[in-house]
Amino acid sequence: MTTAGGDSSLLRRLNTTAVLRTLYGGGPFTLSELVRATAVTRATVENALAALVRQGWAAEVPPAADGRRPVGRPPRRYRFRAESGCVVGLDIGAHKVLAVVADLGGEVRAVRQTAVARDVLPEDRLAAAWKLGHRARRAAGFEADQVRAVGVGATGVVNAAGTVLVSELLPGWAGTELPVELGKSFGAPVAAGNDTNVALLAEHWRGVAAGARDVLFLHAGHEISAGLLIGGRVHQGRHGAAGEIGMLPAAGWSDTARAMSEGWGEDIGALFEAARSRDAKAVESLRRFCEGLTHGAAAMVLAVDPELVVLGGGLSRAGDLLADPLRRGLREACLFPVPVAVSELGVEAVALGAVRLALDEVERELFEMAGVT
Amino acid sequence: MTTAGGDSSLLRRLNTTAVLRTLYGGGPFTLSELVRATAVTRATVENALAALVRQGWAAEVPPAADGRRPVGRPPRRYRFRAESGCVVGLDIGAHKVLAVVADLGGEVRAVRQTAVARDVLPEDRLAAAWKLGHRARRAAGFEADQVRAVGVGATGVVNAAGTVLVSELLPGWAGTELPVELGKSFGAPVAAGNDTNVALLAEHWRGVAAGARDVLFLHAGHEISAGLLIGGRVHQGRHGAAGEIGMLPAAGWSDTARAMSEGWGEDIGALFEAARSRDAKAVESLRRFCEGLTHGAAAMVLAVDPELVVLGGGLSRAGDLLADPLRRGLREACLFPVPVAVSELGVEAVALGAVRLALDEVERELFEMAGVT
Repeated sequence: MTTAGGDSSLLRRLNTTAVLRTLYGGGPFTLSELVRATAVTRATVENALAALVRQGWAAEVPPAADGRRPVGRPPRRYRFRAESGCVVGLDIGAHKVLAVVADLGGEVRAVRQTAVARDVLPEDRLAAAWKLGHRARRAAGFEADQVRAVGVGATGVVNAAGTVLVSELLPGWAGTELPVELGKSFGAPVAAGNDTNVALLAEHWRGVAAGARDVLFLHAGHEISAGLLIGGRVHQGRHGAAGEIGMLPAAGWSDTARAMSEGWGEDIGALFEAARSRDAKAVESLRRFCEGLTHGAAAMVLAVDPELVVLGGGLSRAGDLLADPLRRGLREACLFPVPVAVSELGVEAVALGAVRLALDEVERELFEMAGVT
Repeated sequence: MTTAGGDSSLLRRLNTTAVLRTLYGGGPFTLSELVRATAVTRATVENALAALVRQGWAAEVPPAADGRRPVGRPPRRYRFRAESGCVVGLDIGAHKVLAVVADLGGEVRAVRQTAVARDVLPEDRLAAAWKLGHRARRAAGFEADQVRAVGVGATGVVNAAGTVLVSELLPGWAGTELPVELGKSFGAPVAAGNDTNVALLAEHWRGVAAGARDVLFLHAGHEISAGLLIGGRVHQGRHGAAGEIGMLPAAGWSDTARAMSEGWGEDIGALFEAARSRDAKAVESLRRFCEGLTHGAAAMVLAVDPELVVLGGGLSRAGDLLADPLRRGLREACLFPVPVAVSELGVEAVALGAVRLALDEVERELFEMAGVT
């Protein structure tokens, strides 16, 4: 970077960013380790560390109290201060809002949930979301100005700019510009996506899809929807509408989910319990649901030939009661057997994926030096 | 690359490769331009050029005869010798084999086609393919030892290693290891893929999908199949089976294509002509065909939300007769309108994609220095 040579302030920022990036990626590190990792001089690393400690991004780690008495003074070690800020992950659904607050290292510090009526106005749904976000943030012990970024997983088709383009569930929700609306309430950058895609992000980050490259994610709840991971990245499609195969009449996902909801309403747990004790009505409900689910899933498995299918959403709590018939159905309909894993992230999956979205935003900011002066 | 410094022969090869890569990417270039592009010394570029000219990879370009008389001697210019070798692209179908031979710059030099009965043994189909490949190679004016790589687009599900895993059309075809079988006959590396995916490669290289990132490709011929371009790369899936949505009973693609074939046999041209002159049977055939095509296509458009749908294969010759009802059907079934383009590559699409596959192989070899000594 020859331009940097002529501008010592830019060069200093580049070096400080290099040190910060190294600390963020692991550690704690000694000064010598940082010199090796960043390939700049010892004096430069020392200056960068001083600046980062002063700004609250880094801290010295006290020597390990392991009982052994080292010969001479042990080398100082430094770490990234994950507690210097937080991100807020919001799951904005048709019936509830859920907020997860994590520190900058991704450790979850607080979870809060609240019910929202399906028919409230978009502005009231948004207000419920930002109020809950701040409630979770306070519970996690962070100040308002420590929120570095907000991630959102929202119901509906959400495009790359974070605008809701279509919502079948919520009239009036389409047109909502999530980053604009929520950015005002948090004073931080907001990244948003469709809830299913965001939950898939969580599965790939910390769930059963960790390490996988091509994944079909089925989100089964009040509605069924799908998400695709291709080459290790969530594939959103041109309008953010990838995975909306529930639209296809032959897949029958809308009918399937509706029938299920009408029969058992909110009390899906009761359905599963009844099915496990072989209640005829419950078994039949579940059978029809699985049939529809499998049909749409088969279309997508044939379309993308994934290495893994992940079953998530509220209904995934049924576990093998749902996964087993899905496995059988896919084996019959598809060319190759595909493993089906059940999500273990529970009700927080979408909000956790939103945390990941927010952390991506933080990393982009940090490493583009917007946060370092 | 600190290891290179200690090994002058390796270093020389690295530099020669850098010069070769630059020449391959454009040009002709002067010595000074090559020095600038490769960032090595003038003497090093001169040595590399001498070696490349000696080995037949590069040639000096005669000064432009543009009538102007430059002051002093014009600088020498060098170019990659695309004519120093060739690649063979093979389309191995159920009813025919088609071979395209191109030079190393991708310029098509010869095309040959031959009919193959559907019920011949796999070894006879392969023999027909390599014989035709050599026939086209001779017609293009290349010697057998000038074949640098072979690309194959074959009917059936073909995995990343080039082995046919499944073939519904051709009994006995599954299990064929295309690179092994054809490598013997050409004495060159062979890369193979499913014919639909390979045709999509051609559309992205030189067809209506050039520059696009997310594309659904519909290959409509004796069978209907589909291919996906995601993020500018052909998405093959775990077993190379992505796009096999024709398997789905509800999509009805097998029935659709079969009915079409039974009614009109090989003479699809006659069907289109009849439909254009409003022959009732032809119009009805086409209507039913479009309905099935649209259904499967809608499932895939909903699944991946592509920016473009490309209609290829033999039936794409029908043009808007097929594309218009497909456009209407997709508009009704999908969330967002998606443009539908008709392939312009004609009957050579698969073999042209196979040429691209082979060129990728050549580039890999060249730039990993296997070809430079």
